[in-house]
Amino acid sequence: MLKTKLRSIIEDNTTRKGKIFDYSIQVLILFSLVSFSFETLPDNSPSTTKLLSIFEFICVIIFSIEYVLRIYVAEKPLKYMFSFYGLIDLLSILPFYLTSTIDLRAFRIFRIFRIFRAFKLIRYNKALRRFSVAFTIIKEEVILFFMVTLILVFLSASGIYFFENEAQPEEFSSLFASLWWAIVTLTTVGYGDVFPITVGGKIFTFFILILGIGIVTIPAGLVATALTKARTLEEKEDENEQQKEV
Amino acid sequence: MLKTKLRSIIEDNTTRKGKIFDYSIQVLILFSLVSFSFETLPDNSPSTTKLLSIFEFICVIIFSIEYVLRIYVAEKPLKYMFSFYGLIDLLSILPFYLTSTIDLRAFRIFRIFRIFRAFKLIRYNKALRRFSVAFTIIKEEVILFFMVTLILVFLSASGIYFFENEAQPEEFSSLFASLWWAIVTLTTVGYGDVFPITVGGKIFTFFILILGIGIVTIPAGLVATALTKARTLEEKEDENEQQKEV
Amino acid sequence: MLKTKLRSIIEDNTTRKGKIFDYSIQVLILFSLVSFSFETLPDNSPSTTKLLSIFEFICVIIFSIEYVLRIYVAEKPLKYMFSFYGLIDLLSILPFYLTSTIDLRAFRIFRIFRIFRAFKLIRYNKALRRFSVAFTIIKEEVILFFMVTLILVFLSASGIYFFENEAQPEEFSSLFASLWWAIVTLTTVGYGDVFPITVGGKIFTFFILILGIGIVTIPAGLVATALTKARTLEEKEDENEQQKEV
Amino acid sequence: MLKTKLRSIIEDNTTRKGKIFDYSIQVLILFSLVSFSFETLPDNSPSTTKLLSIFEFICVIIFSIEYVLRIYVAEKPLKYMFSFYGLIDLLSILPFYLTSTIDLRAFRIFRIFRIFRAFKLIRYNKALRRFSVAFTIIKEEVILFFMVTLILVFLSASGIYFFENEAQPEEFSSLFASLWWAIVTLTTVGYGDVFPITVGGKIFTFFILILGIGIVTIPAGLVATALTKARTLEEKEDENEQQKEV
Repeated sequence: MLKTKLRSIIEDNTTRKGKIFDYSIQVLILFSLVSFSFETLPDNSPSTTKLLSIFEFICVIIFSIEYVLRIYVAEKPLKYMFSFYGLIDLLSILPFYLTSTIDLRAFRIFRIFRIFRAFKLIRYNKALRRFSVAFTIIKEEVILFFMVTLILVFLSASGIYFFENEAQPEEFSSLFASLWWAIVTLTTVGYGDVFPITVGGKIFTFFILILGIGIVTIPAGLVATALTKARTLEEKEDENEQQKEV
Repeated sequence: MLKTKLRSIIEDNTTRKGKIFDYSIQVLILFSLVSFSFETLPDNSPSTTKLLSIFEFICVIIFSIEYVLRIYVAEKPLKYMFSFYGLIDLLSILPFYLTSTIDLRAFRIFRIFRIFRAFKLIRYNKALRRFSVAFTIIKEEVILFFMVTLILVFLSASGIYFFENEAQPEEFSSLFASLWWAIVTLTTVGYGDVFPITVGGKIFTFFILILGIGIVTIPAGLVATALTKARTLEEKEDENEQQKEV
Repeated sequence: MLKTKLRSIIEDNTTRKGKIFDYSIQVLILFSLVSFSFETLPDNSPSTTKLLSIFEFICVIIFSIEYVLRIYVAEKPLKYMFSFYGLIDLLSILPFYLTSTIDLRAFRIFRIFRIFRAFKLIRYNKALRRFSVAFTIIKEEVILFFMVTLILVFLSASGIYFFENEAQPEEFSSLFASLWWAIVTLTTVGYGDVFPITVGGKIFTFFILILGIGIVTIPAGLVATALTKARTLEEKEDENEQQKEV
Repeated sequence: MLKTKLRSIIEDNTTRKGKIFDYSIQVLILFSLVSFSFETLPDNSPSTTKLLSIFEFICVIIFSIEYVLRIYVAEKPLKYMFSFYGLIDLLSILPFYLTSTIDLRAFRIFRIFRIFRAFKLIRYNKALRRFSVAFTIIKEEVILFFMVTLILVFLSASGIYFFENEAQPEEFSSLFASLWWAIVTLTTVGYGDVFPITVGGKIFTFFILILGIGIVTIPAGLVATALTKARTLEEKEDENEQQKEV
């Protein structure tokens, strides 16, 4: 009885109470992420640090209650616990308990996992389902372009290593350093920390850019087109269901 | 009588007089924006400064008359005054009156609002309506990608902070500084003022770029596809109307 | 008689002789552009300079003959002369005659017009016609986005001027200097010669980038979608024609 | 008999044994590429170098066996040998034999050809065939945009050379140096090693960026749209075949 009632609040975000619960949690997540950001400021006063850690403590308490409740109301608790969001819910509170109980400096590293709370923000979203339909449609192309991108990055890195290694032995010290150049160039970020200076390297980059820039940006276009198709499919399904009802 | 006549000039840009009024205002806006740009030049001679302020004075007079007329001819004056363009029309003249009457240095800051005149340039545009139809179609996806982009920016910033904070305590001093790096990198601007130097940070950036670049550019593709659909819908409607008329 | 024959060679690139003429001219254009590039090298030996100017002389002779022939074979010579390609054909030889006959240093500047020969390379192209169909389809949207882009660039420049002018009076000296930053940032080029350093300026850039990056890249997606539609229209027309013939 | 059996393993990647063979080769390629990357590290210990060269030796042996087997099982051995993948298979082992037998420093350069092994990773891929269908659909547009891009790059380089050569005679020393700027700018990489400093050059870049950025990114959108169409065509064909079978 209580379980069914709680479930309608926690798992269902279409009811009024469900919406309130959902938005409260989301606002808390946002505040806890902002609080985390402030914690990283180098010159925090002791009082600020204390305030932030108290707020983090409250957040962890609430998220723990949420986690326990979600296990309680779930029809298959184990399935929830090992689902993507189940693990995210756990990871966003676990670091606190680990670092509090066992006082090991090595464990402090896990505190960064708190940021995974960010994923909790997109738990319920209709468009997300549409996106997964779209991804199913173009999975093969995306994998192909992903592989082609990686091969392109590798070949570009090898080429520039060949041309620039002698002229800039520090910047293009190895293929790994050249891979850094290749990814920064082919994604058009272009920090300007490494770039070719030899004539050969520049001509090589010229052709890599002319031919390669498109390959890296094609997947985005594919996803956009597939999302449009996924929406059309959804609309057709809705129409079919309405016709059946009639 | 006069009101109806004025309305056909001011609100309707399909009549000949309406077009002339419309283009005159637009040309004036352009000149006033150019004049504003010249005002910011550091070494203006006193005569130039005077000339520019006289021109600005004339502009404000004309825009004020336009604003008053628009209120006068509007069927629901209050609705116009609180509409987007009503507020823009007000904001583009108000700073002048505020800074002229009350001589407070603190008010000079409002003069920057004059730039909102730029919005007045796209008041009447058929494509704009089509764009709002397109946006309605893909609202959910755009919001999703907007959230995913923000989460991605936040997680990238946290990750790079984790890797680079020790090696570059000045550049990656806090999560806020890392957010700056994240947005500049994921939008592929890449100024080159901050970039990872540790091996861990570079590998992290490598994967963030391979996976993340697409997510930031997908919304543009979505809008392009939706705009095409909006145009198709519009053409169908026009056809239906023509068939009804027949 | 001769005129008809010549026309089939010069204006028609579907006949065998027409193709040979067409490709010869295109190869010559390419060589003349390469020759122009070599002329700009700072340390050319006198013999190289002489060789290049002799080659340029030969090119101009041939292009002049081509120009005269095109006028001769054109059904409406004046229409050709004032068409886009007629002017390009003239501009690519005129500078030579001007700089040769009248020995004025001021005229040397016109030699740069030789580069417009590059446009002659895409004189005959089926896809070009399709592109013009596509552009007609999306003209309104492209103009809208062009205006929105310019307004966005202007508002971004004004915003950053407001935030950075005091902190970096040299880099953001006026709105014009800020416009340079705005265009380099919004197109994601990001040279790194100017970038915000104040907290306000960075936060402003953060939001401008999140919201603005898409607007600048949307037209490319629009053109791509419209080109696909233009091809579909063309295929339908071809089918209709074939059906009529049957 | 043996030949048919071997063929089903080597050429057919739908059978179980074929899959195992296929994945083993792919894993080996990946390891050999990683090994190649480690070889380029500047401070390898002698033992590491030895280990890596032993691993490379093993790889070459296995790839040689693969190459010989592929010739053996091919129905038309010569056709395979001169196919794209036949040449890649040869190029990925040849350098080893050349550099081992003939001890010439000049030959060491060919070792870089080992990286072409990367191409072997995408030998069997359904999406690759779809991609070639898509490319056939938009071949004309892609060629047009490729030409337009090259012309745009050339004209931009000429323009900036005209504006910046006097102000920055080192950076924009010739049209070739300006071409480097043009490609780095129009692909929005923007390293920041060369950029305009004169007012004229900046205004010129402003307009080149506003107008030109789209042209460079349009082909990516075209490919994305064409890939979607290629998939639709494939699905229709599959449906037709299924209907025939019924």
